[in-house]
Amino acid sequence: MEDKIDLNRLCVHTQTTKPWDLHTCIKEYHKAGIPHLSIWRHLLENQDLKLVKKALEDHQLKVTSLVRGGFFPSVSKSVRKEAIQENKKAIDEAKAIGAPLVVLVCGADPKQSLETSRSQIQEGIQNLLPYAKEANVRLAIEPLHPMYAGDKSAIVTLEQANDMAELIDDPFIGIAIDVYHLWWDNQLQKQIERCGKHNNIFAFHVCDWLSPTTDMLTDRGLMGEGSIPVREIRKWTEKAGFQGPIEVEIFSERLWGINQQDYLKQIKQAYIEHT
Amino acid sequence: MEDKIDLNRLCVHTQTTKPWDLHTCIKEYHKAGIPHLSIWRHLLENQDLKLVKKALEDHQLKVTSLVRGGFFPSVSKSVRKEAIQENKKAIDEAKAIGAPLVVLVCGADPKQSLETSRSQIQEGIQNLLPYAKEANVRLAIEPLHPMYAGDKSAIVTLEQANDMAELIDDPFIGIAIDVYHLWWDNQLQKQIERCGKHNNIFAFHVCDWLSPTTDMLTDRGLMGEGSIPVREIRKWTEKAGFQGPIEVEIFSERLWGINQQDYLKQIKQAYIEHT
Repeated sequence: MEDKIDLNRLCVHTQTTKPWDLHTCIKEYHKAGIPHLSIWRHLLENQDLKLVKKALEDHQLKVTSLVRGGFFPSVSKSVRKEAIQENKKAIDEAKAIGAPLVVLVCGADPKQSLETSRSQIQEGIQNLLPYAKEANVRLAIEPLHPMYAGDKSAIVTLEQANDMAELIDDPFIGIAIDVYHLWWDNQLQKQIERCGKHNNIFAFHVCDWLSPTTDMLTDRGLMGEGSIPVREIRKWTEKAGFQGPIEVEIFSERLWGINQQDYLKQIKQAYIEHT
Repeated sequence: MEDKIDLNRLCVHTQTTKPWDLHTCIKEYHKAGIPHLSIWRHLLENQDLKLVKKALEDHQLKVTSLVRGGFFPSVSKSVRKEAIQENKKAIDEAKAIGAPLVVLVCGADPKQSLETSRSQIQEGIQNLLPYAKEANVRLAIEPLHPMYAGDKSAIVTLEQANDMAELIDDPFIGIAIDVYHLWWDNQLQKQIERCGKHNNIFAFHVCDWLSPTTDMLTDRGLMGEGSIPVREIRKWTEKAGFQGPIEVEIFSERLWGINQQDYLKQIKQAYIEHT
């Protein structure tokens, strides 16, 4: 019973258990008593989205978000236009499976300045917003770690994400706070407070930072394995008004290599003890 | 003649041409018309430092800095004490070879908070300062990229370095600005201005950020190969009063793999065209 209560806000990203296909994720998360999941888009390819929605309902699983849209900037205007189309497709998919949110990895083009990329991100989001609102799907800017500034996101601090969200100023645009990307920032507590004040905390992602980190993409840790004060940051988000799902998003060759059912047990344990 | 003038401020770090030993660096940099170098400490092991100093003088090479001291924080008090001893040794070496500056990679211990590590860094520097002043060797805090926050530096922005240097407030403590670590920060221009105002720009390091970056340590680019607006940042430092050497510090398995004399030519070209 205690366990059940404790897992109420637990959400797992399908990419966390990458070896599993979508229907295995749905079946196994349900079996493990995990009430929420976030779905990565590539798992929806060649799927009947009505059946996906039904499978989620049958297993009492709520979709927190569809991951991921974004990638707005490019030196090429036609590539920027294609990005808008691709994002509209993501919004369609989110609507079809009942996901209330699309997470945006905003993008960057190494051939232009970060300022130019940020202005193209703003333009992209503003172009997309009417479509998102029509579909009743919200959008979350996810500031990424500065080590991804070259080609993945020109938005690398919560302050920049706050600036952008407040500039666009629409109830359908907010922010996904991921401890992995933001833990190093001594402005984090202050910026989380600000984010909450503007009702912009749309999502909260957790994992841990390992030392050494041997790969820039796929060497994340389970909460408690590394340096991030996950629980402290979670409390900051709650003080700022956030009560949504706590999303476990871990990319790890090491953890993808173990038995994924055992891994779900470890995730629940780490969620209870360190999150 | 034009070339000679242009290279006046060029400095190369010995680690940039890692395949070479110290005496090859000295001989080859001189042959290439490079007037400054920064020396990495491991190259001084088992060397007669008087002979090193003489070789530098014989080749008209000025030492910009000895790299690197620091690594102050640890959960263990005895390790912190050892760090002070090791830093004193670095100061002795700097004095012996005529280096006016020791660059500090300040350190971090993944087992404690970044705040605790920063307070231990401050304590370490303050313990070290009298010794540095006695030796007439200055110390430069080098803020590292946030991807090194886990175990290499709890100081990851120029703002934090400025805060620390201004708190310690001594003409012997300043900052090494490295574009690789700081380029992603939209506060950079403002913080360079602030750094100059307090006479705290002690050093300026250049290279470039590649996309994708395939290794967190040894995949830096030559200026012009990547996304960093090196020239623009150099101008900010000059506007803030800095006129010292421009130090090329590149760690790159790829570039260590080519003929190092050809590489020096590429460095000079990149220095002239993109720095």
